[in-house]
Amino acid sequence: MNKIISLPFINRSFLKKTTLFLFFMSLTLNAQIDRIEPPFWYAGMKNPELQILFYGKDIAQYQVSVSNGIKITNVKRTENPNYIFVTIDTKKVSSTDLLFTFKNNNKEAFTQKYSLKKRRENSAQRKSFDSSDMMYLLMPDRFANGNRNNDSGEITTEKYNRELPGGRHGGDIEGIIKNLDYISSLGATTIWSTPLCEDNDAAFSYHTYGQSDVYKIDPRYGTNEDYVRLASEMHKKDMKLVMDYVTNHWGIEHWMIKDLPTREWINQFENYTQTNHKRTVVHDINASKIDTETCLKGWFVPSMPDLNLSNPLALKYLIQNAIWWIEYANLDGLRVDTYNYSDPKGIAKWTKSITDEYPRFNIVGEITMRDQAQLSYWQKDSPIGKIQNFNSSLPTVMDFILTDALQSIFNEDEGTWERGMMRVYDNFANDFLYPNVNNLLIFAENHDTKRINQIYGNDIRKYKMAMAILATVRGIPQLYYGSEIGMAGDQNLGDADIRKDFPGGWEGDENNAFIKEGRTPGQNEYFDYTSKLFNWRKTKSAIHFGKMTHYIPENNVYAYFRYNNSDTVMVLMNNSNETRTINTHRFKENIKDFKTGKDVVSELTFDITNEIIIEPKSVLILELKK
Amino acid sequence: MNKIISLPFINRSFLKKTTLFLFFMSLTLNAQIDRIEPPFWYAGMKNPELQILFYGKDIAQYQVSVSNGIKITNVKRTENPNYIFVTIDTKKVSSTDLLFTFKNNNKEAFTQKYSLKKRRENSAQRKSFDSSDMMYLLMPDRFANGNRNNDSGEITTEKYNRELPGGRHGGDIEGIIKNLDYISSLGATTIWSTPLCEDNDAAFSYHTYGQSDVYKIDPRYGTNEDYVRLASEMHKKDMKLVMDYVTNHWGIEHWMIKDLPTREWINQFENYTQTNHKRTVVHDINASKIDTETCLKGWFVPSMPDLNLSNPLALKYLIQNAIWWIEYANLDGLRVDTYNYSDPKGIAKWTKSITDEYPRFNIVGEITMRDQAQLSYWQKDSPIGKIQNFNSSLPTVMDFILTDALQSIFNEDEGTWERGMMRVYDNFANDFLYPNVNNLLIFAENHDTKRINQIYGNDIRKYKMAMAILATVRGIPQLYYGSEIGMAGDQNLGDADIRKDFPGGWEGDENNAFIKEGRTPGQNEYFDYTSKLFNWRKTKSAIHFGKMTHYIPENNVYAYFRYNNSDTVMVLMNNSNETRTINTHRFKENIKDFKTGKDVVSELTFDITNEIIIEPKSVLILELKK
Repeated sequence: MNKIISLPFINRSFLKKTTLFLFFMSLTLNAQIDRIEPPFWYAGMKNPELQILFYGKDIAQYQVSVSNGIKITNVKRTENPNYIFVTIDTKKVSSTDLLFTFKNNNKEAFTQKYSLKKRRENSAQRKSFDSSDMMYLLMPDRFANGNRNNDSGEITTEKYNRELPGGRHGGDIEGIIKNLDYISSLGATTIWSTPLCEDNDAAFSYHTYGQSDVYKIDPRYGTNEDYVRLASEMHKKDMKLVMDYVTNHWGIEHWMIKDLPTREWINQFENYTQTNHKRTVVHDINASKIDTETCLKGWFVPSMPDLNLSNPLALKYLIQNAIWWIEYANLDGLRVDTYNYSDPKGIAKWTKSITDEYPRFNIVGEITMRDQAQLSYWQKDSPIGKIQNFNSSLPTVMDFILTDALQSIFNEDEGTWERGMMRVYDNFANDFLYPNVNNLLIFAENHDTKRINQIYGNDIRKYKMAMAILATVRGIPQLYYGSEIGMAGDQNLGDADIRKDFPGGWEGDENNAFIKEGRTPGQNEYFDYTSKLFNWRKTKSAIHFGKMTHYIPENNVYAYFRYNNSDTVMVLMNNSNETRTINTHRFKENIKDFKTGKDVVSELTFDITNEIIIEPKSVLILELKK
Repeated sequence: MNKIISLPFINRSFLKKTTLFLFFMSLTLNAQIDRIEPPFWYAGMKNPELQILFYGKDIAQYQVSVSNGIKITNVKRTENPNYIFVTIDTKKVSSTDLLFTFKNNNKEAFTQKYSLKKRRENSAQRKSFDSSDMMYLLMPDRFANGNRNNDSGEITTEKYNRELPGGRHGGDIEGIIKNLDYISSLGATTIWSTPLCEDNDAAFSYHTYGQSDVYKIDPRYGTNEDYVRLASEMHKKDMKLVMDYVTNHWGIEHWMIKDLPTREWINQFENYTQTNHKRTVVHDINASKIDTETCLKGWFVPSMPDLNLSNPLALKYLIQNAIWWIEYANLDGLRVDTYNYSDPKGIAKWTKSITDEYPRFNIVGEITMRDQAQLSYWQKDSPIGKIQNFNSSLPTVMDFILTDALQSIFNEDEGTWERGMMRVYDNFANDFLYPNVNNLLIFAENHDTKRINQIYGNDIRKYKMAMAILATVRGIPQLYYGSEIGMAGDQNLGDADIRKDFPGGWEGDENNAFIKEGRTPGQNEYFDYTSKLFNWRKTKSAIHFGKMTHYIPENNVYAYFRYNNSDTVMVLMNNSNETRTINTHRFKENIKDFKTGKDVVSELTFDITNEIIIEPKSVLILELKK
């Protein structure tokens, strides 16, 4: 007696309409099986080992075999009889449907079909984002509401309430798709959306870092197919999609958390224990065991059970989940949340497993360290990690040290050692510590930090200087949605204030900042600068991968050059409150026989042979010419 | 026609009295020769190459040969005809007198005797200071005036004037010798005196970093023989003498500066150029050439010509000068001034040349970096230096990051992230970056920093906490003279204010802090704490070389343990302004089955099985017992 159930992430009404959709999956689940994860898989992966989780009442009692001569290499039962983890060897198996047979006392009890699908061409060799890209970070609930019908999900608890600062505001995948041209017009080539998988928490689910089903897009954002369509639409526009992946924790409402396969699936203490956030314990040779355990195994909040990446079953589950999304949604990259709160060996193995499958794939980890050596520790092939024989395999880390600087320097007085532009200079002076300086995500702010337009009281001169730095130094620039039209917001009032709705994203919004005509003159000034700057950056290989030479700031004026064989760009930044006349002879090793520089924003040409006069709190980005 | 002249560092009256003195050297200089440096050398050095500088009017015109079948491997003439650098191979030559013959047109013009002396037994294998030592830093002009007869040197310009804060106050080597028991009673085992070689500047020569003759003790401090006697007296008391060596610059009055052997001997620019002090240029892959040159080749002040360690002649001269002092004065270590302002390859070669001769010898370099990776870069065998294939060979660096913390944390509020005790914790959390954490010089202050008793307004509780840290964490503790009796001094009033005369060092001083009876009750409280603490430390191998486990500070209370197989010491520091009751269960991985802890200063015993009550702004150093 079989019943046909669609996996929960398949919207029934959608099913009817799109039965021919490329990635549609019908799956007939036997009555004894409530879940299979991954719901399907791909043939021809480099790692042929596939661990399939079968979940159903007392399913562990059955013996399992599989068709097609495929070898079952491991069957793992846990203390919870509702789980069985079956590992098969898919080597040399073409895309096909397999049949699993479940027996009881050598008598067949039921069977279960399982699909190995065909991969996209060149899937393994997919390109990813790099320092030639500009990444736009948005929070989907707060960006644009493209589909009013999904504002409140049917099965999800928290319903639409735009009045509540921390409530669900209705933004969704459709809203992103509708505004891809806007994002692209900014010069952005890549989108990092905060997580989109289901988060069924009763409150604050809009941030979506407490996921309840990691194989399913939250219905309030859309469907899995909508997410695939987002990627597909972006690829048509030469844009790249980066998924925000959370390895460290799930939400308390996750179905597996409610019926844990094993106590070891998550980190648990005798009493609820919060992380101490001291991530230095990982490399600290003096750290106590209890502090180390508390950091890595403690929870963020009681509603976010901390996943145990030292458990092989859980680790494999998370590796496959990420790979599944890359294959399924045709992703261009991952951003990993709270990367260094997990078991270091586990998260490194997770990362290596993914990059082994996709050698050109980029993954950026949230490494909130404020010391370059500590940050470098977490980058792939780091000489710092090597001190402790540690290699994270993580291609990209986040340059929070630069962020801290950008969040304060433009208010800092000139002429003080270790303040003002000197802090930016000092950051780059430690570039030798990184195995790959181009793979640093650089940003003035994100959804967890203060907003720079708030810090600087919407002094657009300071915004411009911050953007000019991001657009011209080494690394991958990342912008946080809304700042490009002057959005501010005070984190002291709560995180919701830095995560306001983008104006124009909602029907009836009087201010529609997505279009020139809808923007205020002030918003256009922000937008135009940002757009011009990052569109210029798009083709500048000297910025993307070129060398840098910088000069010790004097009187809060900072000069640096980016160059390669074909181009030289000079950046001159006056962070003082006075007009400065800068003698350019000091820069002769870079200026060489260049005579003029054309500012890429104003398009004015400057004679650079002797001196440059530069206004207070301003920046010149000069393309040098002979 | 020969004349007999004593080398300038030999006091004529002294000569008459001490002709049999062990290291007495008579040297008959030919009329054509004004200087020979080194004035003599030692047989049996590991590096047999000896570069002898002959200085005299037009001496470069002569051909040189040498007796005893010794090979001259190089004769180097420069653009200055008054110099000739003759390199001989001393391999397999026993201690002996050599005869150099100077010829003109193949006719002997004159001869010159040169001595290769016998080394002390085991000279090459001499031990040095390490983390079992405590180093006392003093400024000889300001410590004690042991010999009133040398207050104003005969040939030196600046005369005695104790009224002048930055003048010569008359302190000398005899003053140090007379007070060795005082220094030893503090628990100090090692003395670092700021430089003692002749500094003939017209003003501020008391700091003596602008030397005018590096083969001669400044006559206002005494004679070369006095210095040898200082070492000898110290060795009798099991104490160690560390010489303050300046590789980066000499004084403008140095005889060679007045008649440069070659323009390349010092770093020179078209116009006077001051260093920019940005020592990060050494490893900064983005640094401009001009900034790098300005940092390393720029001068500190116009009166301190910057030595060019990339010049082989100068480098060899400086290597030999240091080795000469080690052999001659029987030194136990070196402290090197402004270590990373020199050509990095040059200073590394200088250091390696010395440690190649003395493999167990310790050298501590002044590396004023405020970042652990940058500091580690300069330590021998650093994994950070290795990133750039750089190895300084410098055994010990100075932990200025800890100094910065100690100069502020005791005034910092509890409970704030990155302030208070957290800054100390954070420093040790980066210990993995150092190739040798025991070879870090740790100090709360020195002659170039603020004085902690000034910073803390002579709150002795804060002094005690600072000393307790220095006495119990990894590294080599260094004390700055006077603080142990509560001396303060405001650097904002000028450096002389942090370099005041030690009370009791001068005849007629009403307050004689060298003896218990002469100290005020307040001074005794400082002294007694310091003395008890560091005398206790002397025998504690768990402190010297043991492991450390520390616990993340909570509410400005910091706990750490030092231990080895035989001992466990628990340090508990309450930097808050409230009495705290500390639950000790958190520390069970270190407390194990220890039951009590005896405070090494108060000698009170505490039950540690459940909790410890600790007063505000206080520290317990507990020897644990079962």
